[in-house]
Amino acid sequence: MRVEIWSDIACPWCYVGKARFERALRDFPHRDRVEVVHRSFELDPGRAKGDVEPVITMLTRKYGMSEEQARAGEDRLGAQAAAEGLEYRTRGRDHGSTFDMHRLLHLAKERGRQEALLDLLYRANFAEERSVFGDDERLVELAVAAGLDADEARAVLADPAAYADEVRADEREAAGLGARGVPFFVLDRAYGVSGAQPVEVFAQALARAWGERSPLEPVPGGDADVCGPDGCAVPGH
Amino acid sequence: MRVEIWSDIACPWCYVGKARFERALRDFPHRDRVEVVHRSFELDPGRAKGDVEPVITMLTRKYGMSEEQARAGEDRLGAQAAAEGLEYRTRGRDHGSTFDMHRLLHLAKERGRQEALLDLLYRANFAEERSVFGDDERLVELAVAAGLDADEARAVLADPAAYADEVRADEREAAGLGARGVPFFVLDRAYGVSGAQPVEVFAQALARAWGERSPLEPVPGGDADVCGPDGCAVPGH
Repeated sequence: MRVEIWSDIACPWCYVGKARFERALRDFPHRDRVEVVHRSFELDPGRAKGDVEPVITMLTRKYGMSEEQARAGEDRLGAQAAAEGLEYRTRGRDHGSTFDMHRLLHLAKERGRQEALLDLLYRANFAEERSVFGDDERLVELAVAAGLDADEARAVLADPAAYADEVRADEREAAGLGARGVPFFVLDRAYGVSGAQPVEVFAQALARAWGERSPLEPVPGGDADVCGPDGCAVPGH
Repeated sequence: MRVEIWSDIACPWCYVGKARFERALRDFPHRDRVEVVHRSFELDPGRAKGDVEPVITMLTRKYGMSEEQARAGEDRLGAQAAAEGLEYRTRGRDHGSTFDMHRLLHLAKERGRQEALLDLLYRANFAEERSVFGDDERLVELAVAAGLDADEARAVLADPAAYADEVRADEREAAGLGARGVPFFVLDRAYGVSGAQPVEVFAQALARAWGERSPLEPVPGGDADVCGPDGCAVPGH
Protein backbone atom coordinates (compact mmCIF):
# COMPACT_ATOMS: atom_id res chain seq x y z
CA MET A 1 0.00 0.00 0.00
CA ARG A 2 1.17 3.49 -0.71
CA VAL A 3 0.31 6.53 1.37
CA GLU A 4 0.94 9.94 -0.16
CA ILE A 5 1.02 12.90 2.20
CA TRP A 6 0.67 16.43 0.87
CA SER A 7 2.02 18.96 3.35
CA ASP A 8 3.87 22.21 3.79
CA ILE A 9 6.79 22.87 6.10
CA ALA A 10 5.06 26.06 7.26
CA CYS A 11 1.90 24.16 8.26
CA PRO A 12 1.59 23.42 11.99
CA TRP A 13 -1.15 20.84 11.43
CA CYS A 14 1.11 19.01 8.99
CA TYR A 15 3.79 18.77 11.67
CA VAL A 16 1.25 17.46 14.19
CA GLY A 17 -0.60 15.29 11.65
CA LYS A 18 2.59 13.55 10.56
CA ALA A 19 3.26 12.48 14.15
CA ARG A 20 -0.30 11.22 14.58
CA PHE A 21 -0.21 9.30 11.30
CA GLU A 22 3.11 7.75 12.28
CA ARG A 23 1.65 6.59 15.59
CA ALA A 24 -1.16 4.85 13.71
CA LEU A 25 1.31 3.37 11.24
CA ARG A 26 3.53 2.05 14.04
CA ASP A 27 0.66 -0.10 15.30
CA PHE A 28 -0.56 -1.15 11.86
CA PRO A 29 0.12 -4.88 11.39
CA HIS A 30 1.09 -4.45 7.71
CA ARG A 31 3.32 -1.44 8.31
CA ASP A 32 6.23 -3.12 6.49
CA ARG A 33 4.16 -3.12 3.33
CA VAL A 34 3.26 0.55 3.54
CA GLU A 35 5.31 2.99 1.51
CA VAL A 36 5.03 6.66 2.44
CA VAL A 37 5.65 9.39 -0.14
CA HIS A 38 5.64 13.09 0.75
CA ARG A 39 4.27 15.55 -1.75
CA SER A 40 4.57 19.31 -2.06
CA PHE A 41 1.91 21.84 -1.13
CA GLU A 42 2.59 25.51 -0.47
CA LEU A 43 0.14 27.34 1.76
CA ASP A 44 1.49 30.63 0.48
CA PRO A 45 2.57 29.92 -3.11
CA GLY A 46 2.70 33.57 -4.18
CA ARG A 47 5.25 34.59 -1.59
CA ALA A 48 8.64 35.73 -2.88
CA LYS A 49 11.79 34.01 -1.65
CA GLY A 50 13.07 37.06 0.28
CA ASP A 51 9.71 37.98 1.79
CA VAL A 52 10.10 36.87 5.41
CA GLU A 53 8.08 38.13 8.39
CA PRO A 54 7.24 36.96 11.90
CA VAL A 55 4.39 34.44 12.04
CA ILE A 56 2.41 36.67 14.42
CA THR A 57 2.73 39.63 12.01
CA MET A 58 1.62 37.47 9.08
CA LEU A 59 -1.42 36.23 11.03
CA THR A 60 -2.56 39.72 11.97
CA ARG A 61 -1.90 41.16 8.52
CA LYS A 62 -3.28 38.33 6.39
CA TYR A 63 -6.18 37.08 8.49
CA GLY A 64 -7.11 40.26 10.36
CA MET A 65 -6.50 38.77 13.80
CA SER A 66 -5.47 40.87 16.74
CA GLU A 67 -1.98 40.15 18.05
CA GLU A 68 -3.61 38.63 21.11
CA GLN A 69 -5.70 36.26 18.99
CA ALA A 70 -2.66 35.29 16.92
CA ARG A 71 -0.63 34.54 20.04
CA ALA A 72 -3.48 32.56 21.58
CA GLY A 73 -3.74 30.51 18.37
CA GLU A 74 -0.03 29.76 18.47
CA ASP A 75 -0.37 28.73 22.12
CA ARG A 76 -3.13 26.28 21.27
CA LEU A 77 -1.13 24.85 18.34
CA GLY A 78 1.86 24.53 20.67
CA ALA A 79 -0.27 22.56 23.14
CA GLN A 80 -1.44 20.19 20.37
CA ALA A 81 2.14 19.68 19.25
CA ALA A 82 3.29 19.07 22.84
CA ALA A 83 0.58 16.44 23.22
CA GLU A 84 2.32 14.56 20.38
CA GLY A 85 5.71 14.97 22.02
CA LEU A 86 6.79 17.64 19.54
CA GLU A 87 8.65 20.81 20.38
CA TYR A 88 6.93 24.00 19.18
CA ARG A 89 8.15 27.54 19.68
CA THR A 90 5.01 29.60 20.06
CA ARG A 91 6.88 32.90 19.87
CA GLY A 92 9.49 34.29 17.52
CA ARG A 93 8.98 31.98 14.55
CA ASP A 94 9.19 33.34 11.00
CA HIS A 95 6.97 32.83 8.00
CA GLY A 96 8.23 32.82 4.42
CA SER A 97 8.31 30.93 1.13
CA THR A 98 8.73 27.16 1.36
CA PHE A 99 9.22 26.67 -2.38
CA ASP A 100 12.98 26.05 -2.11
CA MET A 101 12.42 23.53 0.69
CA HIS A 102 9.97 21.61 -1.47
CA ARG A 103 12.49 21.63 -4.32
CA LEU A 104 15.11 20.21 -1.96
CA LEU A 105 12.62 17.59 -0.79
CA HIS A 106 12.29 16.39 -4.39
CA LEU A 107 16.06 16.08 -4.67
CA ALA A 108 15.98 14.20 -1.36
CA LYS A 109 13.26 11.91 -2.69
CA GLU A 110 15.50 10.93 -5.59
CA ARG A 111 18.29 10.19 -3.13
CA GLY A 112 16.13 8.21 -0.72
CA ARG A 113 16.42 10.92 1.95
CA GLN A 114 13.03 12.60 1.76
CA GLU A 115 11.68 11.48 5.11
CA ALA A 116 14.88 12.49 6.91
CA LEU A 117 14.93 15.94 5.33
CA LEU A 118 11.26 16.61 5.98
CA ASP A 119 11.64 15.76 9.67
CA LEU A 120 14.67 18.05 9.93
CA LEU A 121 12.85 20.89 8.15
CA TYR A 122 9.84 20.60 10.44
CA ARG A 123 12.04 20.54 13.49
CA ALA A 124 14.08 23.50 12.28
CA ASN A 125 10.98 25.55 11.49
CA PHE A 126 8.87 24.75 14.52
CA ALA A 127 11.35 24.00 17.29
CA GLU A 128 14.62 25.79 16.61
CA GLU A 129 15.49 29.41 17.06
CA ARG A 130 17.42 30.02 13.84
CA SER A 131 15.03 30.83 11.00
CA VAL A 132 14.79 28.49 8.02
CA PHE A 133 13.66 31.36 5.80
CA GLY A 134 15.93 33.59 3.74
CA ASP A 135 19.01 31.58 4.65
CA ASP A 136 20.20 29.16 1.94
CA GLU A 137 23.17 27.97 4.00
CA ARG A 138 20.78 26.90 6.75
CA LEU A 139 18.93 24.76 4.21
CA VAL A 140 22.22 23.30 2.95
CA GLU A 141 23.13 22.35 6.53
CA LEU A 142 19.81 20.60 6.97
CA ALA A 143 20.20 18.85 3.62
CA VAL A 144 23.64 17.58 4.66
CA ALA A 145 22.26 16.45 8.02
CA ALA A 146 19.66 14.46 6.05
CA GLY A 147 22.43 12.74 4.09
CA LEU A 148 22.48 14.83 0.91
CA ASP A 149 25.56 16.20 -0.77
CA ALA A 150 26.21 19.86 0.09
CA ASP A 151 27.22 20.87 -3.44
CA GLU A 152 24.22 19.14 -4.92
CA ALA A 153 21.87 20.90 -2.49
CA ARG A 154 23.56 24.25 -3.20
CA ALA A 155 23.18 23.71 -6.95
CA VAL A 156 19.44 23.06 -6.53
CA LEU A 157 19.01 26.19 -4.40
CA ALA A 158 20.97 28.29 -6.91
CA ASP A 159 18.78 27.19 -9.83
CA PRO A 160 15.13 28.19 -9.26
CA ALA A 161 14.05 25.86 -12.07
CA ALA A 162 15.50 22.74 -10.42
CA TYR A 163 12.61 20.48 -9.34
CA ALA A 164 10.20 23.41 -9.78
CA ASP A 165 8.08 21.35 -12.19
CA GLU A 166 7.94 18.52 -9.67
CA VAL A 167 6.66 20.87 -6.95
CA ARG A 168 4.03 22.34 -9.28
CA ALA A 169 2.97 18.89 -10.47
CA ASP A 170 2.40 17.77 -6.86
CA GLU A 171 0.31 20.88 -6.25
CA ARG A 172 -1.80 20.41 -9.37
CA GLU A 173 -2.33 16.82 -8.36
CA ALA A 174 -3.51 17.84 -4.89
CA ALA A 175 -6.04 20.18 -6.47
CA GLY A 176 -7.15 17.41 -8.83
CA LEU A 177 -7.68 15.07 -5.88
CA GLY A 178 -9.82 17.64 -4.10
CA ALA A 179 -7.42 18.75 -1.38
CA ARG A 180 -8.51 22.11 0.01
CA GLY A 181 -5.83 22.24 2.67
CA VAL A 182 -3.06 20.23 4.26
CA PRO A 183 -2.09 17.81 5.59
CA PHE A 184 -3.87 15.65 3.04
CA PHE A 185 -3.36 11.89 3.11
CA VAL A 186 -4.16 9.64 0.16
CA LEU A 187 -4.12 5.86 0.59
CA ASP A 188 -3.56 3.81 -2.56
CA ARG A 189 -5.23 6.59 -4.56
CA ALA A 190 -8.53 5.29 -3.21
CA TYR A 191 -9.07 6.94 0.17
CA GLY A 192 -8.49 10.51 1.25
CA VAL A 193 -7.98 11.78 4.80
CA SER A 194 -8.00 15.53 5.30
CA GLY A 195 -6.32 17.17 8.26
CA ALA A 196 -4.41 16.20 11.39
CA GLN A 197 -7.01 13.66 12.39
CA PRO A 198 -6.84 11.69 15.63
CA VAL A 199 -4.61 8.59 15.57
CA GLU A 200 -7.72 6.35 15.52
CA VAL A 201 -8.95 7.88 12.26
CA PHE A 202 -5.61 7.15 10.61
CA ALA A 203 -5.69 3.62 12.02
CA GLN A 204 -9.18 3.08 10.59
CA ALA A 205 -8.17 4.52 7.23
CA LEU A 206 -5.15 2.21 7.02
CA ALA A 207 -7.22 -0.83 7.97
CA ARG A 208 -9.96 0.05 5.53
CA ALA A 209 -7.67 0.81 2.61
CA TRP A 210 -5.75 -2.39 3.27
CA GLY A 211 -8.85 -4.57 3.61
CA GLU A 212 -10.78 -3.15 0.71
CA ARG A 213 -8.11 -3.19 -1.92
CA SER A 214 -9.99 -4.22 -5.01
CA PRO A 215 -8.64 -6.79 -7.42
CA LEU A 216 -6.95 -5.44 -10.52
CA GLU A 217 -8.98 -5.06 -13.65
CA PRO A 218 -7.16 -6.91 -16.41
CA VAL A 219 -6.60 -4.85 -19.54
CA PRO A 220 -7.63 -6.81 -22.64
CA GLY A 221 -4.78 -8.24 -24.60
CA GLY A 222 -4.49 -11.75 -23.26
CA ASP A 223 -1.65 -13.39 -21.43
CA ALA A 224 0.68 -13.80 -24.36
CA ASP A 225 4.42 -13.25 -24.23
CA VAL A 226 5.13 -13.84 -20.57
CA CYS A 227 7.84 -15.75 -18.79
CA GLY A 228 6.61 -17.80 -15.87
CA PRO A 229 7.40 -20.91 -13.86
CA ASP A 230 6.90 -22.98 -17.03
CA GLY A 231 9.31 -20.94 -19.09
CA CYS A 232 8.79 -18.22 -21.66
CA ALA A 233 5.95 -18.44 -24.14
CA VAL A 234 7.52 -18.09 -27.57
CA PRO A 235 5.33 -17.45 -30.62
CA GLY A 236 5.28 -20.32 -33.05
CA HIS A 237 6.76 -22.59 -30.41
CA MET B 1 -0.34 8.00 -12.14
CA ARG B 2 2.00 5.28 -11.03
CA VAL B 3 2.95 2.25 -13.10
CA GLU B 4 4.61 -0.64 -11.29
CA ILE B 5 6.43 -3.18 -13.43
CA TRP B 6 7.32 -6.58 -12.06
CA SER B 7 10.10 -8.19 -14.04
CA ASP B 8 13.18 -10.36 -13.92
CA ILE B 9 16.53 -9.61 -15.53
CA ALA B 10 16.58 -13.18 -16.86
CA CYS B 11 13.21 -12.74 -18.60
CA PRO B 12 13.43 -12.03 -22.35
CA TRP B 13 9.81 -10.86 -22.52
CA CYS B 14 10.51 -8.36 -19.73
CA TYR B 15 13.36 -6.90 -21.80
CA VAL B 16 11.11 -6.65 -24.87
CA GLY B 17 8.02 -5.57 -22.90
CA LYS B 18 9.87 -2.72 -21.23
CA ALA B 19 10.78 -1.30 -24.65
CA ARG B 20 7.20 -1.64 -25.87
CA PHE B 21 5.77 -0.01 -22.76
CA GLU B 22 8.25 2.84 -23.09
CA ARG B 23 7.19 3.42 -26.68
CA ALA B 24 3.58 3.74 -25.54
CA LEU B 25 4.61 6.01 -22.67
CA ARG B 26 6.63 8.27 -24.99
CA ASP B 27 3.45 9.07 -26.94
CA PHE B 28 1.20 9.35 -23.89
CA PRO B 29 0.14 13.00 -23.47
CA HIS B 30 0.37 12.85 -19.66
CA ARG B 31 3.75 11.06 -19.62
CA ASP B 32 5.22 13.74 -17.30
CA ARG B 33 2.69 12.71 -14.66
CA VAL B 34 3.51 9.02 -14.87
CA GLU B 35 5.90 7.57 -12.33
CA VAL B 36 7.40 4.17 -13.11
CA VAL B 37 8.54 1.84 -10.33
CA HIS B 38 10.27 -1.47 -11.03
CA ARG B 39 9.58 -4.40 -8.76
CA SER B 40 11.34 -7.69 -8.21
CA PHE B 41 10.25 -11.04 -9.55
CA GLU B 42 12.52 -14.08 -9.87
CA LEU B 43 11.62 -16.65 -12.48
CA ASP B 44 13.93 -19.11 -10.78
CA PRO B 45 13.80 -18.19 -7.08
CA GLY B 46 15.23 -21.47 -5.83
CA ARG B 47 18.48 -21.23 -7.77
CA ALA B 48 21.66 -20.88 -5.72
CA LYS B 49 23.99 -17.98 -6.34
CA GLY B 50 26.79 -20.08 -7.81
CA ASP B 51 24.53 -22.27 -9.95
CA VAL B 52 25.18 -20.96 -13.47
CA GLU B 53 24.56 -22.79 -16.73
CA PRO B 54 24.07 -21.93 -20.40
CA VAL B 55 20.53 -20.82 -21.27
CA ILE B 56 20.22 -23.56 -23.89
CA THR B 57 21.23 -26.23 -21.34
CA MET B 58 18.72 -24.87 -18.82
CA LEU B 59 15.93 -24.93 -21.41
CA THR B 60 16.59 -28.53 -22.42
CA ARG B 61 17.06 -29.73 -18.83
CA LYS B 62 14.20 -27.82 -17.19
CA TYR B 63 11.54 -27.82 -19.89
CA GLY B 64 12.44 -30.99 -21.76
CA MET B 65 13.11 -29.21 -25.05
CA SER B 66 15.51 -30.57 -27.63
CA GLU B 67 18.58 -28.39 -28.21
CA GLU B 68 17.13 -27.55 -31.60
CA GLN B 69 13.85 -26.38 -30.11
CA ALA B 70 15.69 -24.34 -27.49
CA ARG B 71 17.82 -22.65 -30.13
CA ALA B 72 14.81 -21.97 -32.34
CA GLY B 73 13.03 -20.37 -29.37
CA GLU B 74 16.01 -18.13 -28.70
CA ASP B 75 16.06 -17.17 -32.39
CA ARG B 76 12.42 -16.14 -32.26
CA LEU B 77 12.96 -14.15 -29.07
CA GLY B 78 15.96 -12.51 -30.73
CA ALA B 79 13.79 -11.49 -33.68
CA GLN B 80 11.17 -9.99 -31.36
CA ALA B 81 13.89 -8.06 -29.53
CA ALA B 82 15.41 -6.87 -32.81
CA ALA B 83 11.99 -5.60 -33.88
CA GLU B 84 12.12 -3.30 -30.84
CA GLY B 85 15.65 -2.18 -31.69
CA LEU B 86 17.18 -4.26 -28.89
CA GLU B 87 20.34 -6.32 -29.17
CA TYR B 88 19.90 -9.97 -28.22
CA ARG B 89 22.58 -12.66 -28.26
CA THR B 90 20.73 -15.81 -29.20
CA ARG B 91 23.74 -18.03 -28.46
CA GLY B 92 26.13 -18.29 -25.55
CA ARG B 93 24.09 -16.56 -22.85
CA ASP B 94 24.08 -17.88 -19.29
CA HIS B 95 21.27 -18.49 -16.84
CA GLY B 96 21.62 -18.11 -13.09
CA SER B 97 20.21 -16.52 -9.95
CA THR B 98 19.04 -12.91 -10.27
CA PHE B 99 18.48 -12.43 -6.55
CA ASP B 100 21.60 -10.27 -6.05
CA MET B 101 20.64 -8.10 -9.02
CA HIS B 102 17.22 -7.49 -7.53
CA ARG B 103 18.84 -6.58 -4.22
CA LEU B 104 21.07 -4.09 -6.04
CA LEU B 105 18.01 -2.69 -7.84
CA HIS B 106 16.46 -1.91 -4.46
CA LEU B 107 19.60 -0.06 -3.40
CA ALA B 108 19.45 1.76 -6.74
CA LYS B 109 15.80 2.64 -6.13
CA GLU B 110 16.74 4.32 -2.86
CA ARG B 111 19.41 6.29 -4.72
CA GLY B 112 17.17 7.29 -7.62
CA ARG B 113 19.13 5.07 -10.04
CA GLN B 114 16.80 2.12 -10.48
CA GLU B 115 15.85 2.72 -14.09
CA ALA B 116 19.48 3.24 -15.11
CA LEU B 117 20.64 0.04 -13.39
CA LEU B 118 17.82 -2.08 -14.77
CA ASP B 119 18.59 -0.96 -18.33
CA LEU B 120 22.26 -1.77 -17.83
CA LEU B 121 21.48 -5.19 -16.34
CA TYR B 122 19.18 -6.08 -19.23
CA ARG B 123 21.75 -4.95 -21.75
CA ALA B 124 24.53 -6.84 -20.00
CA ASN B 125 22.49 -10.04 -19.78
CA PHE B 126 20.95 -10.05 -23.23
CA ALA B 127 23.41 -8.19 -25.43
CA GLU B 128 26.90 -8.49 -23.98
CA GLU B 129 29.30 -11.37 -24.06
CA ARG B 130 30.55 -11.28 -20.48
CA SER B 131 28.18 -13.13 -18.17
CA VAL B 132 26.36 -11.26 -15.42
CA PHE B 133 26.10 -14.44 -13.36
CA GLY B 134 28.61 -15.61 -10.76
CA ASP B 135 30.68 -12.45 -11.09
CA ASP B 136 30.15 -9.89 -8.33
CA GLU B 137 32.68 -7.47 -9.75
CA ARG B 138 30.73 -7.38 -13.00
CA LEU B 139 27.64 -6.33 -11.02
CA VAL B 140 29.67 -3.68 -9.17
CA GLU B 141 30.84 -2.28 -12.52
CA LEU B 142 27.26 -2.07 -13.75
CA ALA B 143 26.15 -0.46 -10.47
CA VAL B 144 28.88 2.15 -10.82
CA ALA B 145 27.90 2.77 -14.46
CA ALA B 146 24.36 3.40 -13.17
CA GLY B 147 25.68 6.02 -10.75
CA LEU B 148 25.92 3.99 -7.55
CA ASP B 149 28.84 3.98 -5.18
CA ALA B 150 31.15 0.98 -5.72
CA ASP B 151 31.72 0.32 -2.00
CA GLU B 152 28.02 0.57 -1.27
CA ALA B 153 27.20 -1.90 -4.07
CA ARG B 154 29.96 -4.25 -2.84
CA ALA B 155 28.58 -4.10 0.71
CA VAL B 156 25.10 -5.05 -0.53
CA LEU B 157 26.48 -7.99 -2.53
CA ALA B 158 28.56 -9.17 0.43
CA ASP B 159 25.55 -9.22 2.76
CA PRO B 160 22.87 -11.63 1.49
CA ALA B 161 20.34 -10.10 3.90
CA ALA B 162 20.66 -6.59 2.43
CA TYR B 163 17.40 -5.72 0.66
CA ALA B 164 16.40 -9.39 0.72
CA ASP B 165 13.16 -8.52 2.51
CA GLU B 166 12.37 -5.91 -0.12
CA VAL B 167 12.81 -8.45 -2.92
CA ARG B 168 10.61 -10.98 -1.12
CA ALA B 169 7.97 -8.35 -0.36
CA ASP B 170 7.76 -7.42 -4.06
CA GLU B 171 7.37 -11.08 -4.95
CA ARG B 172 4.64 -11.66 -2.37
CA GLU B 173 2.86 -8.60 -3.65
CA ALA B 174 3.00 -9.87 -7.24
CA ALA B 175 1.41 -13.11 -6.11
CA GLY B 176 -1.24 -11.17 -4.19
CA LEU B 177 -2.06 -9.15 -7.29
CA GLY B 178 -2.50 -12.28 -9.34
CA ALA B 179 0.68 -12.18 -11.43
CA ARG B 180 1.45 -15.61 -12.84
CA GLY B 181 4.42 -14.48 -14.88
CA VAL B 182 6.35 -11.43 -15.95
CA PRO B 183 6.47 -8.77 -17.17
CA PHE B 184 3.45 -7.67 -15.16
CA PHE B 185 2.34 -4.05 -15.31
CA VAL B 186 0.07 -2.48 -12.69
CA LEU B 187 -1.39 0.98 -13.30
CA ASP B 188 -2.45 2.94 -10.21
CA ARG B 189 -3.17 -0.37 -8.49
CA ALA B 190 -6.34 -0.53 -10.56
CA TYR B 191 -5.41 -2.10 -13.90
CA GLY B 192 -3.16 -5.05 -14.66
CA VAL B 193 -1.43 -5.81 -17.94
CA SER B 194 0.23 -9.19 -18.26
CA GLY B 195 3.04 -9.83 -20.71
CA ALA B 196 4.98 -8.02 -23.39
CA GLN B 197 1.83 -6.76 -25.06
CA PRO B 198 1.86 -4.77 -28.28
CA VAL B 199 2.50 -1.03 -27.90
CA GLU B 200 -1.18 -0.30 -28.62
CA VAL B 201 -2.33 -2.34 -25.62
CA PHE B 202 -0.03 -0.35 -23.32
CA ALA B 203 -1.29 2.88 -24.90
CA GLN B 204 -4.89 1.85 -24.28
CA ALA B 205 -4.12 0.80 -20.71
CA LEU B 206 -2.46 4.16 -19.97
CA ALA B 207 -5.37 6.10 -21.49
CA ARG B 208 -7.93 4.03 -19.67
CA ALA B 209 -6.24 4.17 -16.28
CA TRP B 210 -5.73 7.91 -16.67
CA GLY B 211 -9.31 8.60 -17.76
CA GLU B 212 -11.02 6.36 -15.28
CA ARG B 213 -9.25 7.38 -12.15
CA SER B 214 -12.02 7.37 -9.60
CA PRO B 215 -12.48 10.15 -7.08
CA LEU B 216 -11.12 9.50 -3.62
CA GLU B 217 -13.39 8.14 -0.98
CA PRO B 218 -13.18 10.44 2.03
CA VAL B 219 -12.47 8.65 5.28
CA PRO B 220 -14.85 9.86 8.01
CA GLY B 221 -13.36 12.24 10.46
CA GLY B 222 -14.30 15.63 9.09
CA ASP B 223 -12.11 18.39 7.81
CA ALA B 224 -10.85 19.63 11.15
CA ASP B 225 -7.29 20.68 11.84
CA VAL B 226 -6.13 21.69 8.40
CA CYS B 227 -4.15 24.63 7.15
CA GLY B 228 -5.47 26.12 3.94
CA PRO B 229 -5.66 29.37 2.01
CA ASP B 230 -7.65 30.87 4.90
CA GLY B 231 -5.10 29.94 7.54
CA CYS B 232 -4.95 27.13 10.04
CA ALA B 233 -8.09 26.01 11.85
CA VAL B 234 -7.28 26.20 15.54
CA PRO B 235 -9.58 24.55 18.11
CA GLY B 236 -11.32 27.04 20.32
CA HIS B 237 -10.42 29.81 17.96
